[in-house]
Amino acid sequence: MDISNSIRSQILSDALPYIQKYHDKVVVVKYGGNAMTNESLKEAVMSDIVLLSEVGIKVVLVHGGGPEINAMLKRVGIESKFINGLRYTDKETMDIVKMVLCGKLNKELVSALQLHGGNALGLCGCDGRLIIADKLDRDDGEDYGYVGEIKKVTTKPILDALKDGYVPIISTVGIGEDGQSYNINADTAASRIASCLRAEKLILMTDIVGLLKDKDDDSTLIPQVNVSEVPFLKKSGIISGGMIPKIDCCVEAVRRGVKRTSIIDGRVPHSILIELLTNEGIGTQFN
Amino acid sequence: MDISNSIRSQILSDALPYIQKYHDKVVVVKYGGNAMTNESLKEAVMSDIVLLSEVGIKVVLVHGGGPEINAMLKRVGIESKFINGLRYTDKETMDIVKMVLCGKLNKELVSALQLHGGNALGLCGCDGRLIIADKLDRDDGEDYGYVGEIKKVTTKPILDALKDGYVPIISTVGIGEDGQSYNINADTAASRIASCLRAEKLILMTDIVGLLKDKDDDSTLIPQVNVSEVPFLKKSGIISGGMIPKIDCCVEAVRRGVKRTSIIDGRVPHSILIELLTNEGIGTQFN
Amino acid sequence: MDISNSIRSQILSDALPYIQKYHDKVVVVKYGGNAMTNESLKEAVMSDIVLLSEVGIKVVLVHGGGPEINAMLKRVGIESKFINGLRYTDKETMDIVKMVLCGKLNKELVSALQLHGGNALGLCGCDGRLIIADKLDRDDGEDYGYVGEIKKVTTKPILDALKDGYVPIISTVGIGEDGQSYNINADTAASRIASCLRAEKLILMTDIVGLLKDKDDDSTLIPQVNVSEVPFLKKSGIISGGMIPKIDCCVEAVRRGVKRTSIIDGRVPHSILIELLTNEGIGTQFN
Amino acid sequence: MDISNSIRSQILSDALPYIQKYHDKVVVVKYGGNAMTNESLKEAVMSDIVLLSEVGIKVVLVHGGGPEINAMLKRVGIESKFINGLRYTDKETMDIVKMVLCGKLNKELVSALQLHGGNALGLCGCDGRLIIADKLDRDDGEDYGYVGEIKKVTTKPILDALKDGYVPIISTVGIGEDGQSYNINADTAASRIASCLRAEKLILMTDIVGLLKDKDDDSTLIPQVNVSEVPFLKKSGIISGGMIPKIDCCVEAVRRGVKRTSIIDGRVPHSILIELLTNEGIGTQFN
Amino acid sequence: MDISNSIRSQILSDALPYIQKYHDKVVVVKYGGNAMTNESLKEAVMSDIVLLSEVGIKVVLVHGGGPEINAMLKRVGIESKFINGLRYTDKETMDIVKMVLCGKLNKELVSALQLHGGNALGLCGCDGRLIIADKLDRDDGEDYGYVGEIKKVTTKPILDALKDGYVPIISTVGIGEDGQSYNINADTAASRIASCLRAEKLILMTDIVGLLKDKDDDSTLIPQVNVSEVPFLKKSGIISGGMIPKIDCCVEAVRRGVKRTSIIDGRVPHSILIELLTNEGIGTQFN
Amino acid sequence: MDISNSIRSQILSDALPYIQKYHDKVVVVKYGGNAMTNESLKEAVMSDIVLLSEVGIKVVLVHGGGPEINAMLKRVGIESKFINGLRYTDKETMDIVKMVLCGKLNKELVSALQLHGGNALGLCGCDGRLIIADKLDRDDGEDYGYVGEIKKVTTKPILDALKDGYVPIISTVGIGEDGQSYNINADTAASRIASCLRAEKLILMTDIVGLLKDKDDDSTLIPQVNVSEVPFLKKSGIISGGMIPKIDCCVEAVRRGVKRTSIIDGRVPHSILIELLTNEGIGTQFN
Repeated sequence: MDISNSIRSQILSDALPYIQKYHDKVVVVKYGGNAMTNESLKEAVMSDIVLLSEVGIKVVLVHGGGPEINAMLKRVGIESKFINGLRYTDKETMDIVKMVLCGKLNKELVSALQLHGGNALGLCGCDGRLIIADKLDRDDGEDYGYVGEIKKVTTKPILDALKDGYVPIISTVGIGEDGQSYNINADTAASRIASCLRAEKLILMTDIVGLLKDKDDDSTLIPQVNVSEVPFLKKSGIISGGMIPKIDCCVEAVRRGVKRTSIIDGRVPHSILIELLTNEGIGTQFN
Repeated sequence: MDISNSIRSQILSDALPYIQKYHDKVVVVKYGGNAMTNESLKEAVMSDIVLLSEVGIKVVLVHGGGPEINAMLKRVGIESKFINGLRYTDKETMDIVKMVLCGKLNKELVSALQLHGGNALGLCGCDGRLIIADKLDRDDGEDYGYVGEIKKVTTKPILDALKDGYVPIISTVGIGEDGQSYNINADTAASRIASCLRAEKLILMTDIVGLLKDKDDDSTLIPQVNVSEVPFLKKSGIISGGMIPKIDCCVEAVRRGVKRTSIIDGRVPHSILIELLTNEGIGTQFN
Repeated sequence: MDISNSIRSQILSDALPYIQKYHDKVVVVKYGGNAMTNESLKEAVMSDIVLLSEVGIKVVLVHGGGPEINAMLKRVGIESKFINGLRYTDKETMDIVKMVLCGKLNKELVSALQLHGGNALGLCGCDGRLIIADKLDRDDGEDYGYVGEIKKVTTKPILDALKDGYVPIISTVGIGEDGQSYNINADTAASRIASCLRAEKLILMTDIVGLLKDKDDDSTLIPQVNVSEVPFLKKSGIISGGMIPKIDCCVEAVRRGVKRTSIIDGRVPHSILIELLTNEGIGTQFN
Repeated sequence: MDISNSIRSQILSDALPYIQKYHDKVVVVKYGGNAMTNESLKEAVMSDIVLLSEVGIKVVLVHGGGPEINAMLKRVGIESKFINGLRYTDKETMDIVKMVLCGKLNKELVSALQLHGGNALGLCGCDGRLIIADKLDRDDGEDYGYVGEIKKVTTKPILDALKDGYVPIISTVGIGEDGQSYNINADTAASRIASCLRAEKLILMTDIVGLLKDKDDDSTLIPQVNVSEVPFLKKSGIISGGMIPKIDCCVEAVRRGVKRTSIIDGRVPHSILIELLTNEGIGTQFN
Repeated sequence: MDISNSIRSQILSDALPYIQKYHDKVVVVKYGGNAMTNESLKEAVMSDIVLLSEVGIKVVLVHGGGPEINAMLKRVGIESKFINGLRYTDKETMDIVKMVLCGKLNKELVSALQLHGGNALGLCGCDGRLIIADKLDRDDGEDYGYVGEIKKVTTKPILDALKDGYVPIISTVGIGEDGQSYNINADTAASRIASCLRAEKLILMTDIVGLLKDKDDDSTLIPQVNVSEVPFLKKSGIISGGMIPKIDCCVEAVRRGVKRTSIIDGRVPHSILIELLTNEGIGTQFN
Repeated sequence: MDISNSIRSQILSDALPYIQKYHDKVVVVKYGGNAMTNESLKEAVMSDIVLLSEVGIKVVLVHGGGPEINAMLKRVGIESKFINGLRYTDKETMDIVKMVLCGKLNKELVSALQLHGGNALGLCGCDGRLIIADKLDRDDGEDYGYVGEIKKVTTKPILDALKDGYVPIISTVGIGEDGQSYNINADTAASRIASCLRAEKLILMTDIVGLLKDKDDDSTLIPQVNVSEVPFLKKSGIISGGMIPKIDCCVEAVRRGVKRTSIIDGRVPHSILIELLTNEGIGTQFN
């Protein structure tokens, strides 16, 4: 980009109040979707995370991995059975999930972040019993296999990593009291981790612009929502479909003590920087 | 076992000098073979590691995973090509290796150790750039793909884990300066990690009794070897075949400052305890 | 003992849950009786204490010294006068008590424990005002001389010693606000020290098997007693005679917050290890 | 400025390598000239210093104050006598210098920096004996009064301030062993402080573009000079006049171990940010 | 003085209980009046402060500077306007106040204390926002200019200085939220700083003997006053005139948690030592 | 004493340079002779030690106990046999020595020092293996029993005590590698402890005025001796008899790195304060 140094320095200077706001605070980023599959977006995210941690923000990265899991399941010939929208996770599937999340994606993210000069530590819910989980029980009489729900987040391994100078990158595989692995939804895990860390902010990266009054018109973005308005927005259909669980995660995080949570458009390069370090932000913020 | 408390207490008391010897010292254990595939042996190893760390020994576990890697490669239909005894590792193979080691085996070990009351952190060579590697170059004109050789071990993530109260469990996937993953031999990695940590002891768990004068007679076990005798033992054929690289790891470790290294019989339950906390030891010790 | 290494390692392994239970916890041991006068029992106790401290248990040793005091008093020609079962302690007697406890026995124990590879620091109630005492006043109009009762335990010198890596070995001579020394009962002191340290366990070593239903039949040992049952056991005569003050110390310790207290048979070699690190324990436990 | 968030975030992202380069490093800034007298330039400098310290750079500010000193001297009717270009500093003048530098300018800078959200501590050479000085002796038989030369820089008060989270702002009044105050040239002091702190960078803010091949043509700026070229540049007249002592400070700093020193144009807003956090820098760098 | 060493040592010994009383405690000294203008008294005070800090007392020095401010104002031709006994402080006056207090007197005290072997750090209310102030508002409709009242004392810079081994010497210039400087009464500031530091003692050095029953007879000194008696003493005229605000500072300090505050006669050499380290004290103590 | 507060404060002030000289430095005091047996001298010594530790000097007290040992040996009917001026120490004698030194005198000193407001910890050579000793072997064919010579001083327990805020009070009973106790000369032990602690000063309290040119004329005191002059002073008979071993301890200490050592007259009240905190000192100093 051909921008004069004078403009560059002005823009850096403009970021000061935002840097001060988040300095020494915990920010949890749920990373997924296009921002994870598109290589140049991924580069931008990694660079952003390193920048944020250099300027003194304690970033915790929680990642998903749906498409890669699907590809691997297909490759080894496991067919997925869905119950009420959740994939039934048998022992074989659980193994593939773990391998793809903790063995492939997590380690690729650790490497990528380090290529940008950061220092990262890959963790999953087993390490130091970070995510203690139990078999999901929705009281609907269904057996979802090894789909889990979180019982407790042990913050020690995350705090240890931050204290020792690493960006913790977390795969959301939970562990049962009996050592069994469980498949945990990454949005839910990010929300719960953020509240247990009393994070200043939770950012969910998505493939949508944000919450739209008219879902077909990006110009109708709702920049800010108070969590008390959510039931109404659901009733009115503005929050609907796949957006519901994501926004429930935001509401839950705010209710449990996270100051602000945002759904941002991961398809925009450097969307995290825009959200955290500029005056406008991006997407929809819940508080 | 029906053993009187008086005998039990006497035996515990007999272990005192050995506990004192290793107290607050680093012991690196290369874990593999039968001890890893046989479920009850695995239980015993996990229990031993927890016991050793409870009595103040800083245990670092380095694991391999040959059979599981083979099974997964076969399952996804990748055929292996061997060059001079080393598996040519292409990009696809490397991915499978990482998934099995870092995603499956490493996390299973973390869980298993925690089921015995320990606290574990799974690491691979990428995390905190633990194992910085390069493409193997044997000066033989061959291309082995992503088989790597170790350039540098970053001890910080291991020491951080020990200081924070975890048993570090390490998968031996290395990382290049460019972020590329490399497949690293686990024995070599354990040897190198032990020397960089200035370990008191390196233990390689194997599926043999130890070094035998007559390879068909277990009663001819050589309990102790000075590394200066190794060239002679090779010439005389006592060290031969698959044993050569393992023993080279032992020699290398001793040369680089590890006090003692042992090849022990992982098929014997609690072989690690026998080696470390009894007066006889087990297998062959190099020093 | 000719026990195979496989059995040895199994027994060490069996001790793991007990080691985990007491790890980093304070255990106060009142040492006295046969275990102190018999040389080989003494060796075993010293070895046990070192073992326990090596495996991460914070042992505090409180010792008595009746027989040696008697011998020395006799040697210098002081005749003892008893009032209601308590020895009247005049200034001369008090000097002898101090010399024998703090100068002879305490230093012998420090030396003995160090011969087994431990690190010990001898303390008495004067050092750092560890045991602040007052003249015993039983409201019975009697003057017991310099027999004292504990007003306050200063835990700092004990905690300093533990933090600095020593086993504190304590002679139970108390100090008055005016600097006067007082003769303090060792069982009482151990009980009080244990409660002030919020110890996990208090062990009183005695010369009896434990609390017996029929005092002439060792097979009628009562392994566990709830402190609420003690009044009934006293009424029924099962707790009687010299056992009463000892058991009162146990009850007092439990009431003031020590998790468990045990009366064990010091005549059995390694009785402390049996009590703490095996599944059966020994003697009678109060909780 | 109306710049899109996407450009803003890109520019922030572009600054990452520069932030990483100076992270946790000491940068000494000599502040003076127009950047100090022009109110909006001053605001920009204060904002820049706060930004730099927020992103983890240890900034030390050393300031001059010529014009304000002149104004005050005039106001109280002290006439200045110059000898070889140096102002003869009698006791009365010294008092005024101290009052203006330490009492007025220093405290104004502390306040200004704090208004931008920073945390500052005003220091002069007396505080903690930061600048130990002696009467200037140029071996020219002249008496310059209380003009001083630096004998020793005590880094402790500066390091204490940085460790405790303050930006140290330093007035260059030195202190003699006998407690006498001395007037110290601010460029010289900044250079010496930078070398004693083993600073990563020394920046001298001036009112010129930098070193020019043709002093009347700003486009002939020499961006980089190796200190070994300086004698030649002096001989050729490119370095001349008032520039000589400033450049001598740069050379001296590099010789004593400062990695890089730059003369930058303080009249350009945010010149410090441009110099430190963009790819081009500004002015002339010596190394 | 020709005093035998035996008497010297006895006197040192006599000081022990007083040293013990103030060891590791904070003592705030308001320094002003004759003790500041008379050179030999000043030497004695500096020596006393160093002695007190050497024996482990945490001394905080707060200084005034009336006469020097007056002299400077006169010198630059500013005429003072008084309203209700307070000097109206316009911007120009405020600048002179700051220059004299922070630039001249403060730095002279830092130098003087260091000449006696101490280590000092000069601070004013701006540094680290030590004294956050607001425009004085007495609800009397008058505008006193930049005369300030204290809103908050930030103890961090004082505690940092003490922790880092310096005697903090404080000029009482306050800072507004908007960065404006305010002229703060030194007695009030000392009182408020003492209470915020939970000081053991506040000493106000004055030019009077103390509180006298008969103001013309020094032998009628009242050595001790309970703050509850103050209203009565005011009514009876014993506390009157210029003494009122000083004694209000004492009362306020005691009310806000300072253990003892004293008004001492700064005209007596070593009056601080007499007050703190001898059995009689000097002046009048409030508690 | 009726001394005015003004003189008192002057004398306190005069002590400042001496306090500064020894601040945070280790001073080892060998305590014995009249200063230990005379009750009022003892009170003065205890008070002095507390004063010194309050003003920041790290005092280590090493005590002897000849007369009390003799009295106790006599009381229990042990007759002493002397060989070349050394008491042959059999096992029984060793026990009495230990009891008197570690059990009686040491604890009395701990109590006495605490009565003056200090905090003390009694140690002997066994505690933490403080004084590791061996059987004295003078190569003269004689067997002196359990008279020992120092092999090594373990400074850790002394440094731990100082760090934890106690004055360590040391009985000079040594411990052999085999746990045997040895009788160690207190002057020798103090000298060795001082050099191992790199003490600023060693003070030996004696019952003589110091080194006299004419042993019958106190006015011929030699205040200072360079250790190189000692051989000459021995030859000339000025150093003779019982003074020789004491002065050898001084010489040895200086040679091993103690800055200054003094022989002072313990019969003078507060002789330690006079020596350390006045301009004249007392007795003879070796350096």
